[in-house]
Amino acid sequence: MKTHCSKDALLTGVNTVQKAVSGKNVEPDLQSIFLRAEAGKLIFLATDMEIGIRCEVPAETETEGTLLLPAKLFSDIVRKLPDTQITLESQAESANLEYYQSQIFLKGYDPEQFPLLPDLLDPVSFSLPSESFKTMIRETLIAAAQEESRPIFKGLLLEMEGSVLRLIATDTHRLAYSQSGIDNPNGLDFSGIVPSKTMSEIYRLLKDDDDSITVRFTGSHVSFQFGAVHLLTRLIEGQFPNYKQVIPSSCRTKIRLLVKDLMESVERASLLARESSAGVSLVRLEISGDLLKIEHTTDIGKISEQLSIEKEGADITISFNSRFILDVLRVLPSDQMRFELSGPQSAAIIRTPADENYLYLLLPVRTN
Amino acid sequence: MKTHCSKDALLTGVNTVQKAVSGKNVEPDLQSIFLRAEAGKLIFLATDMEIGIRCEVPAETETEGTLLLPAKLFSDIVRKLPDTQITLESQAESANLEYYQSQIFLKGYDPEQFPLLPDLLDPVSFSLPSESFKTMIRETLIAAAQEESRPIFKGLLLEMEGSVLRLIATDTHRLAYSQSGIDNPNGLDFSGIVPSKTMSEIYRLLKDDDDSITVRFTGSHVSFQFGAVHLLTRLIEGQFPNYKQVIPSSCRTKIRLLVKDLMESVERASLLARESSAGVSLVRLEISGDLLKIEHTTDIGKISEQLSIEKEGADITISFNSRFILDVLRVLPSDQMRFELSGPQSAAIIRTPADENYLYLLLPVRTN
Repeated sequence: MKTHCSKDALLTGVNTVQKAVSGKNVEPDLQSIFLRAEAGKLIFLATDMEIGIRCEVPAETETEGTLLLPAKLFSDIVRKLPDTQITLESQAESANLEYYQSQIFLKGYDPEQFPLLPDLLDPVSFSLPSESFKTMIRETLIAAAQEESRPIFKGLLLEMEGSVLRLIATDTHRLAYSQSGIDNPNGLDFSGIVPSKTMSEIYRLLKDDDDSITVRFTGSHVSFQFGAVHLLTRLIEGQFPNYKQVIPSSCRTKIRLLVKDLMESVERASLLARESSAGVSLVRLEISGDLLKIEHTTDIGKISEQLSIEKEGADITISFNSRFILDVLRVLPSDQMRFELSGPQSAAIIRTPADENYLYLLLPVRTN
Repeated sequence: MKTHCSKDALLTGVNTVQKAVSGKNVEPDLQSIFLRAEAGKLIFLATDMEIGIRCEVPAETETEGTLLLPAKLFSDIVRKLPDTQITLESQAESANLEYYQSQIFLKGYDPEQFPLLPDLLDPVSFSLPSESFKTMIRETLIAAAQEESRPIFKGLLLEMEGSVLRLIATDTHRLAYSQSGIDNPNGLDFSGIVPSKTMSEIYRLLKDDDDSITVRFTGSHVSFQFGAVHLLTRLIEGQFPNYKQVIPSSCRTKIRLLVKDLMESVERASLLARESSAGVSLVRLEISGDLLKIEHTTDIGKISEQLSIEKEGADITISFNSRFILDVLRVLPSDQMRFELSGPQSAAIIRTPADENYLYLLLPVRTN
């Protein structure tokens, strides 16, 4: 192969596929980036067999062909290339990069060793605006389990029912739910659990100027296409919890307050808790009249915060894991928030006036 | 004590003194910040007995007094305070912070336990423009030894001789030298080795709008005063190498080239070297005619860079540790640089046309 493209194009390619490159626990030739030069473009591909990313960038191709290059070294070299036109040529399994009067020769691997990704050319598909999808990911990803949990909790449920698309995540302590209207003329339904890592990659790679995202799926895989990027991922096997059952339909107390106020008060209260011997940092909310009080006493000090709120319904005192509150406050898209409570032992719901299609449910912590 | 000041003032205080707070290997009450409220100001003090930093911020003091507070927790709390007026009051050894309708009570220690810093009120002193001093630090600090070295190499020689101030650092492989004219009407001479940590703190704390810096010294300590900051440090004991002896006064080859060109080429060549088994990353410069060639071959690939240069004198081929070259290229204040060479086994000198009072000497590496 022989092709010419800008340093920026190469950089876009390696940055886009990097997170799909296998980690250090596989053979070196699998920690690689596959390149294919075609007329007018250079295609980048990487996969760790869980997730595969494909990206194409503009290039002037003289001779078509393929290369399989060590991902880390090739990416590092691309980052350091001068900002000019680069010629990339294969010499057997190796690559030769030329710029100005300089050149880099880099040993590669046999491109035939690169695993083929499943083809989803003819599956069920629909599209939605990329901006809405980005918001949905941002608001739900926070509730997915991080580590040491059953696989289904480390993914997000992607569900299409009629003209509604839903994204739901839970780690059993809290649940985030977001929905959006979609164009689904064929009335196709789908439900699958997408790994969190895939979702955060989509979030990272989606640009604000990507018009729409096309989702295609089979029983075991789902693919997302936007701009010049094509991302394919395995689905997580298993039964996702019945989220409809756990979302309460009414509440006894409803308060409105400023996101920033609550966030800063909980952050300060957490500082004292963190230094104490406990472990989980609890925050106790005392709602009384038009005031929300947060009090926390440890052996190193005491904090007492007081916030103005608008309230409907009964007074209540309830405790939460402060991290679970902070997680959602940091992603809410508006200054205002609503807290819906039904008792010190019942699930609470946080909503935002900016997006009525979103809710965050969290379980209280029992205290004495 | 009772005083009122802005959140920003408190933040300036804790950020300024934080690097002087003792690490975790001392008693908790020494990992602390000392506060003294006086008329119109609040004074912050911290010391690990090597370095002491004092800073004052504007405050409306109602009652004078002192407090000794746990540094990390107090700093974290200050960072999270709302952007408003804060009232800070002592209650026995504890602090009470008030803002809006909220308050934080934080246990402290007996202020009498805070170690006194030596007083340098009446020592030898001179001043110099802070901008010049910042440049001198930036250009020389890179050559000081980092770890596992004799103490004298982990400091910078601060030397005043007549109306010349010098700053010199060396780790025995390279040496950085910078000088500046100063106002020294009393003709006082001084020479002392200042810890690198102190120098990087001064660099961090010096603001561009600080007019000048006043330096005072005794035999064992030196202090630096600028803006509202007063920094005191122990000197390192020992004999600094005779730098005058090692700086060559002439050279056989002189080349001029662009800093950016050399930096990027050496960075790329280092990438290949880093991946090889060697350890130290060598770079071989081949100067021939009006070209500088960098060639590097390892078992994973080969790089061949070629740069245009202006040359006076003989052709030469010489090898360096590439990190030692990159360190200086990253701090040179101009686009242009000069390389002075006297043979493949002789010390080389890098200079910048933007500052004729600066030089960086480095020893070549012998290769076969």
